[in-house]
This record gives sequence, C-alpha cells and structure tokens, in this order.
Amino acid sequence: MIMTRQELFENIKKKQSFLCVGLDTDLKKIPEHLLKEEDPIFAFNKAIIDTTAPYCVAYKPNLAFYEAFGVKGMIAFEKTVKYIQENYPDQFIIADAKRGDIGNTSKMYARTFFGEYDVDALTVAPYMGEDSVTPFLDGYENKWVILLALTSNKGSFDFQLTEDKDGERLFEIVIRKSQQWGNDDNMMYVVGATRGEMFKDIRKVAPKAFLLVPGIGAQGGSLEEVCKHGMIEDCGLLVNSSRAIIYADNSENFAAIAAEKAKEVQLKMTQFIHN
Amino acid sequence: MIMTRQELFENIKKKQSFLCVGLDTDLKKIPEHLLKEEDPIFAFNKAIIDTTAPYCVAYKPNLAFYEAFGVKGMIAFEKTVKYIQENYPDQFIIADAKRGDIGNTSKMYARTFFGEYDVDALTVAPYMGEDSVTPFLDGYENKWVILLALTSNKGSFDFQLTEDKDGERLFEIVIRKSQQWGNDDNMMYVVGATRGEMFKDIRKVAPKAFLLVPGIGAQGGSLEEVCKHGMIEDCGLLVNSSRAIIYADNSENFAAIAAEKAKEVQLKMTQFIHN
Repeated sequence: MIMTRQELFENIKKKQSFLCVGLDTDLKKIPEHLLKEEDPIFAFNKAIIDTTAPYCVAYKPNLAFYEAFGVKGMIAFEKTVKYIQENYPDQFIIADAKRGDIGNTSKMYARTFFGEYDVDALTVAPYMGEDSVTPFLDGYENKWVILLALTSNKGSFDFQLTEDKDGERLFEIVIRKSQQWGNDDNMMYVVGATRGEMFKDIRKVAPKAFLLVPGIGAQGGSLEEVCKHGMIEDCGLLVNSSRAIIYADNSENFAAIAAEKAKEVQLKMTQFIHN
Repeated sequence: MIMTRQELFENIKKKQSFLCVGLDTDLKKIPEHLLKEEDPIFAFNKAIIDTTAPYCVAYKPNLAFYEAFGVKGMIAFEKTVKYIQENYPDQFIIADAKRGDIGNTSKMYARTFFGEYDVDALTVAPYMGEDSVTPFLDGYENKWVILLALTSNKGSFDFQLTEDKDGERLFEIVIRKSQQWGNDDNMMYVVGATRGEMFKDIRKVAPKAFLLVPGIGAQGGSLEEVCKHGMIEDCGLLVNSSRAIIYADNSENFAAIAAEKAKEVQLKMTQFIHN
C-alpha cells in the first residue's frame, strides 16, 4: 500500500480523527470465548478492526506480541495486515517493531516489512545512526520511517535527555540529524504523550514532521496538552491508544465496547482538528 | 539452556577460541544446490554448524535474516536453535535481534527469546533506558542481555560519540548506567572491532564485562588491536565473524571451507588466550 502525507491528512479530516489503535494482542488478555477460535489473535483483531475502523485512521500492531506466539503469532500478524489492506485501504498501517541495525541487516528488515508485509510505516530505533536508518528510506517511495525520539516511558530520562556541550538534548540531536536522512514526507518521530510540555521543544526542531504519540490511555498522557503544543496546519499527529481501547472489556461484547472507547477519543479529537 | 560466565570461560579455554560465528543466512547468498532442500536455510546452518563447531564457542543467528523469509524463516530459526542445543550444548547462543521497548513489550520479547526459544543471550538497544532493559534481566537467571554500546558501523559516530557537559560520551553513559541494572554475570556489551583503539576507553567503564565484538572479517576490524586493549583475565571477549566465514565459498564444499576460515581465526586467537 502507499499513503502520502496528503492522503493521510485527507483521512484525518474526513474522519475527524487522528487516532491510531494499537493492536498489542495478547492471548492472556483477550476474551476467553475467543480461545476456541482457530486463530484467536486474528479473530480478536478482526473484531476490533471491524468496530473501531470508523473512529481511527491508523492501526499499529506491536510485533513483540505476535513474535511471542512464534510462527502462529506471525501468521496472525500477516493475516491482520492483509485484512486491513483489503477491507480498510484508507487505514495507515504501522508495524511497531523498533528495528535498526547495520546497513545490510536493516536492508533485510526493510525488505520484510515494506517488501513482504507491505505496511505503510515501521518504527525504527536511532542508536546506530544514519546507515541503520537509510536502508528503510532508500528505494521505498511513500513508505515511512517512524524514528524513536522522546519515548513515553520512565527510561526515556536515562539517555534521551542527556545534554551535549551546547545544551542540545539527545532527542533533539536525533531529530535534527535525521532530518538530513529523510524528510517530512517519509519520516515521522515517536514522541510520548506523557511529555505534554515537551511538544513545544519538539516543534522547534521538527516544525512540520508528523509525530506518532503513544502514552495517552493506560500510560496517562493528556490529549489536550499534546494538541495544544504539538498540532500543526495539517494536524501532524497520530495519537495512539492500545490497552485502553482494545482491553476496555473482556466479555462477548468486547468489540462494541472497544468501539465506544475509540469513539470517545475521536469525539475529543474533533475539536482540535483544523478544517 | 543455561550458561554462566565461568562455563563460558571454561569453553573458551578448552577450545582455545573466543570466536562467535554469525548465522546471517540469506537465501540469495547460500550455495545454489541447497535451494532444492525442503528447508534450505536450516540445511545451510546445519552444515555450517557441524563443521565449524570445533573452532567456535558461540553462534549468533541474526533475526533480520530469518524474519525476512516470514514464517518459513522463523521455523528455520527455531530449528537452528534447537539443533545447536541438542547437538552442541556447550555453544553459547545469541539471538541478535536488537530489541528494546516499553516494559510490557520488552517483557513479551523476553518471554519469546528466553522463554520460548531458550537462547542464552539477546542483543538489546539501549535508547529507551532502564525499564526497556530490565524485563530481560528480571526472572531470567543465567540469561544474558547484550546491550549495544559502541557499534561497528559508520552511523555509530552520529549519536554514540556525543559528549555530555562533562565530556562523557553516550556509549560510556550507556555502559555506566546500565551496570546498575545488571552485572558482569548477566550483561555484556556490543563494541565494534572497527574501533580497536577505543577498547582502552571501554575497559575504563567496563573493566570486567564480556564484550561481543562484531566487525572483524567483512567489516575490517583488527583482532590484534581488540585483544591488546580489550582482553581481560577470563578473556571477556566474544569476537564475531559472519560473512567472512559462512560465505567464504559457494560450492558444494562450502561447509568445509567455512570450517577452514573458522579454524584460521581460532588459530590466531589461541595466542591471546591466558591459560
């Protein structure tokens, strides 16, 4: 699939939503009645997708959860991606895998996620620098790298806020340097919602980049803060919620309740979107 | 499987080798006659393992290469790990996956690699800090985290050498801080051989840690330099070579030639090992 920045923004306007639903599907957390299904992970995802699709513009399967169930998990991942592509082609699909390695290895990961699975975007870890990131950009037109910048977890304080001699923090260095490798049409950044006040600083170094924002919902970030400091002319935000939506309910009615939760977020979002 | 630091050093002494053979198995590079096999990736690995095992103490399958072939690739990875465990239980198995994510996600990766596949060690990316790393340590006794510190690629200059206000470089901050999360019995560091002179600095912050050293062979690092500055009392080094060994030859005789290359490296290594 292919999705340009403009198409993404068109979908955001049309749906009045910049919600991304995270598919962190865990056999230990899904409703028990689904365990009878031949492929419970896919059955869960399909139900969640069918009910939440009107309220979101993106889905983000988290690879850790699929890999944890070995070959079966990876089959469920592949089926989920295909199901979205065939039935909801306007949804932006992010493989949340946080990959990044030396050039020849990153090239293999790029081939897997962009070539084989054909997702729209992949999260990438920046630690190994330019030649670990560019293989995801070169030769994949209209695919997106989503680089980790300032993450939503406590550990983000350990290294990401380290200041260099000029007072520039690591996440700012990552954003500044990486903008020479890609551009605002093929590179986004992960910025955690738990750092609402930091979006001002982010917008100084990345005034026009799209940001993937985890951390509202279960992690407690504020949508208002994120929008106040982070939103730009063509939105520039994809706000993710995983657990708070997909595990809102554990009964046979789980998918309808998940949709209600997604709709609640969408209704909050509509007030922030510039028409 | 379980391997303590002491057992690892015993194997190093016994075999007079601290070589790790990287299994970056690519269908596009393996000898053509293997493509007829039902599982060519596993057939290649099995042949390489059977001939090189006398000359190395560790194998490092690189997950990117297996994921690139989807479900079939992951089956080949699983079979490879099991084959080593059943036939060469003294080999240390490193899953080179460079994972690292928020706590609940890292926990899933830990369950996959240590719980399901039961490998001895996993490479982990440090960017997301403490709570992205500790799930790989907690509850997995005698398993190893191998944290990226100073990698062998050109992009390592982009962020890893960034100096903070006190002149401490990011890779040094990573090593210093992470030593509070784990210890020399469950944490190693990746340090590229292409930075021979830097091993002196590494040993200042990690005097007793084992180091996983990629970058000799195809990437051109010097074994002599690495040993001169990096070796400690109980060796403290696992030097990896992938392409220079496994793709040394492309004929039906490939496995024997790979063994010759591994033996060449092992013979060089023997002079550096303290008995």
